[in-house]
Formats: sequence, structure tokens, C-alpha cells
Amino acid sequence: KYNVAVIGAGVVGVEMLRVLKQRNFPVNELVVFARSARDIDVDGEIYPVKSISPDAFKGIDIALFAGTEGEKGAAVTYAQEAVKRGAIVIDNGADFRMDPKVPLVVPEVNALDVKKHKGIIANPNCSTIQMVVALNPIYKKAGLKRVIVTTLQASSGAGKGAVEQLKEESILIAEGGFNNVRVSAVNKSMPQQLAYNVFPHIGSFVEGDYTNEEWKLVKETHKIMHAPKLKISATTVRVPVRTGHSESIYIETDKYISVDNVRNMLSK
Amino acid sequence: KYNVAVIGAGVVGVEMLRVLKQRNFPVNELVVFARSARDIDVDGEIYPVKSISPDAFKGIDIALFAGTEGEKGAAVTYAQEAVKRGAIVIDNGADFRMDPKVPLVVPEVNALDVKKHKGIIANPNCSTIQMVVALNPIYKKAGLKRVIVTTLQASSGAGKGAVEQLKEESILIAEGGFNNVRVSAVNKSMPQQLAYNVFPHIGSFVEGDYTNEEWKLVKETHKIMHAPKLKISATTVRVPVRTGHSESIYIETDKYISVDNVRNMLSK
Repeated sequence: KYNVAVIGAGVVGVEMLRVLKQRNFPVNELVVFARSARDIDVDGEIYPVKSISPDAFKGIDIALFAGTEGEKGAAVTYAQEAVKRGAIVIDNGADFRMDPKVPLVVPEVNALDVKKHKGIIANPNCSTIQMVVALNPIYKKAGLKRVIVTTLQASSGAGKGAVEQLKEESILIAEGGFNNVRVSAVNKSMPQQLAYNVFPHIGSFVEGDYTNEEWKLVKETHKIMHAPKLKISATTVRVPVRTGHSESIYIETDKYISVDNVRNMLSK
Repeated sequence: KYNVAVIGAGVVGVEMLRVLKQRNFPVNELVVFARSARDIDVDGEIYPVKSISPDAFKGIDIALFAGTEGEKGAAVTYAQEAVKRGAIVIDNGADFRMDPKVPLVVPEVNALDVKKHKGIIANPNCSTIQMVVALNPIYKKAGLKRVIVTTLQASSGAGKGAVEQLKEESILIAEGGFNNVRVSAVNKSMPQQLAYNVFPHIGSFVEGDYTNEEWKLVKETHKIMHAPKLKISATTVRVPVRTGHSESIYIETDKYISVDNVRNMLSK
């Protein structure tokens, strides 16, 4: 059994606590760290949250950092401190993913890369994970020439505030007969209207007029699938869904493979 | 000035009445036909709806059929009857679009095709229109090798009932904290949940596991752009938006053209 720390008490941290429980992960001691100490209620169970500090990681075997896609996560400050004190860090944030010394792992695709870790293991962007799980069996069987992907990403990917904004806007606008004049009353987590709206702007625009979210789908896929030259073009779109991302993926294979064959592989 | 008939009093028919008024179309007499006679209120103005019959088209110069994307529209029964009585038919439905004797026209793209009409002029699918308006200037300048498109289509494309379903589901589910147990209370216009959901199923699945909605984007684009061999692959997705379709379009051109050049053309 392991001493486990979850770092973060937002949408992702709470989901980590749920999954550890659902899966009966062999936990000895479980602690939750965040910037400020408080109690949180997860499905009726109270978890005390402790204030994070380097020495808090003493005796921890596995440190799960909830991480963040945008600003720097707690892992930037604390991951190495945790490793120094004997923990293995699994970081769900974006900070270490492209570090050549850090394995970036999706168990269904490149589980063995875990073996190369030097204390930190990174977890990819949510959109990358579901894409590589679908692409990898096809890539292994028939190769891939190019991948054109459009994502339809839920509000939860932008955090608790975005989910709350979606909820409030949805009710106000629908009750107003889809007239959005009252939407200015909503506490805005994001500058865009989320309800009844789609917008191709996740993260910030960087090189080539792609957003950094779009580049993650390219670069993380290259690393995870060990396919650094695979041609990928991504368009990431926010849609008014609470949780659960979808993707429309167009692929061209190197060798001929029948659609039935692909369907069989995916259903397995 | 023209005697104008609008055939249909649903979402599309009402929008046609709005646009005729907004644009000050030179109308002499305006009549609305539908299956059953009644009065409808459009933005506070009452339009009497008359029951449709072949002889109702006597004296009509222009007959605008609201049409339907799914089942056969009124145009199947009445378009030729209207033409016989001297009207020019403009059909917004899907019934005549691929008829080689009927021009399929998007004014920004192939306005001159109108001249070949023999009484009926067809209007394309909503998703096709917005795509060809964007593609055509690029096609003329640099040619096109292939087009990969994912559409994000609003509920209004599925009619009044779908918009109402989206509204009711959105409120019920959001008020229930995104727990959708109460959604069974909603009057269902479509089998799928519309609120907070996306699904790649518009129309019905036909050849090649594409839907007929997806084939419209292929075949109608070929006809409108006079580009019968252009490679197009479409995925059509319903999203929880009230009105207004979006599209994520990936293109490859025949000749090199800079992104700035494309952007300039599109902004014009």
C-alpha cells in the first residue's frame, strides 16, 4: 500500500480523489495539498486539505499533481522537492510534458516509457489522450501519413469557473427565449459566452496561427507515439458541453487498411 | 413589383418573411401557403396563411418554397404546378438540388447559373452555402486538391421542435446541477439529447458510412463550384447552439498561396 498525495483541490484534484476511491487503489495514507488549508466535500466525504510545502512530501510514495493547462502549475515549484524526498511524481499539468527527461505516458499506448522516469512522469493534455488511444492501433497496423483533427472540448477543461458560467448562462439565456441581453449578469470565468456558442480559441494563439492547445495535440502525439514526423493539423473548439471532449479525426494511412478492420481494432 | 408566395410557415418560412421585409423586396402581393390555413405572428405582424393548392399559384411571379432537408417537401407536389401557372420557383428544400435541369445557386459563387433555369432554381443545404462562399475565391486563385470539413450545426437546422427541445433540456439539466435525470420530462423532437451534447449524426447513414447530410456537402459543392472531381470528406455534427452553423475546414491547394493572401481574400 502507498502513501498518496493529491496536489490540487479543483475539478481535476476532486476527480483524482474519486478515481482513487472507485478503483480501490491500494492507499495507506491519503493527503490533499493545495495553496490554502480547508475541508472539501467530495460526494459526501470530507477531505481535509493541507497547505502545501516542500516538507509535506516526506513519506509520500506517489504525488499526483492535478496541474493546469494554462499558467504554471504547483509542479514547477514542488515536483523536484517531492522527488528529492522519495516520491514519484505524476503530473497532470503541462509543465513537464515536453521535457526530454520526463516520460509522457498514456498506458494504452506507451506504458513501457514509464520505466525511463527519473522521478517525474507526465500525463498529456486531455485531447491528446483520447486521440492517441484511437490512433495508435491504426498506426501500428498501417502507418499514418497525416491526421486532421477538430476537437469539440467541454467547459470542464477550462475549470470549475467555466462550468459554473456555462450553467448560469444556459439558464438565463434559455429563460429569456434565447435572447442573451441578460447574460452580462453572469459571473464570467472566460471572456467568451459559453452557452449556445462554439469558438475555436482554446489557450492562446502562437506560431503559425495555431493556439498552444493545438500544438499540444501535435507535439505530445509525436512524443507519445514515437512518431516525430507524423503530419498533424489540429483545430481546437470549445463547445457548450459540461464534461467530455469529442474529436472529429480524419486520417490517411501509409498502407491500405479496410474500414471494417479499423472498426474492429477500435471496438477492441 | 412581384407577386410573391412563401410556401411553409415553419422556421424557414418565417425567416423568409422577415428577410423580404428587411430588404424591402419589391413585393406587390404577398401570400403564405401551408398545409392548413391559419394566422401566424412574425415579430408582431400577422400573416394569414392559406391552404396550398395548385390553383393558388395563379398570378404568382415568384414562389419561395421553404422546403425541408429530410422528408419530401411541398415542392415535390407543387413546384411544377406553380411553374405551369407562370411562377418562378426557388426551392430551399433538398428535392431538386441534384436534378441536372435545375440550377443550384449561391449568388456569391455561381450567380450566372440562374440563367439556365427552366422554372425551378434550387438553394443548397445550409452547410454547403457557407462552405462554398469561403472556398470559391481560394479555388479560383490556387485550385483545391482536397477539403476536409467538420461542421458544428445548430439546433435550428432541425426545425422549431429541436430549438424548443434544446431550450427545455438546457434549463432542466442546468437547474439539476447538470444531472440529466429529469430530462425525460422534455418533449422530444429528436431522439438525442441536444443540450450539453454533441453528436455526429445529422440525417441518416447511407453509402460509405457517411450520412446524407455529409454527402450533400460533397455533391452540392461539386455542382455549385463546377468542380465535380474535388475531393471532399465531411463529418456533420449537431451542437447545442440555437441558430448559426460553424465549420472547421482544412484545405490543400493545387498551387502555393500564402495564408495572408487567403486571409485577405476572405476578409473581402
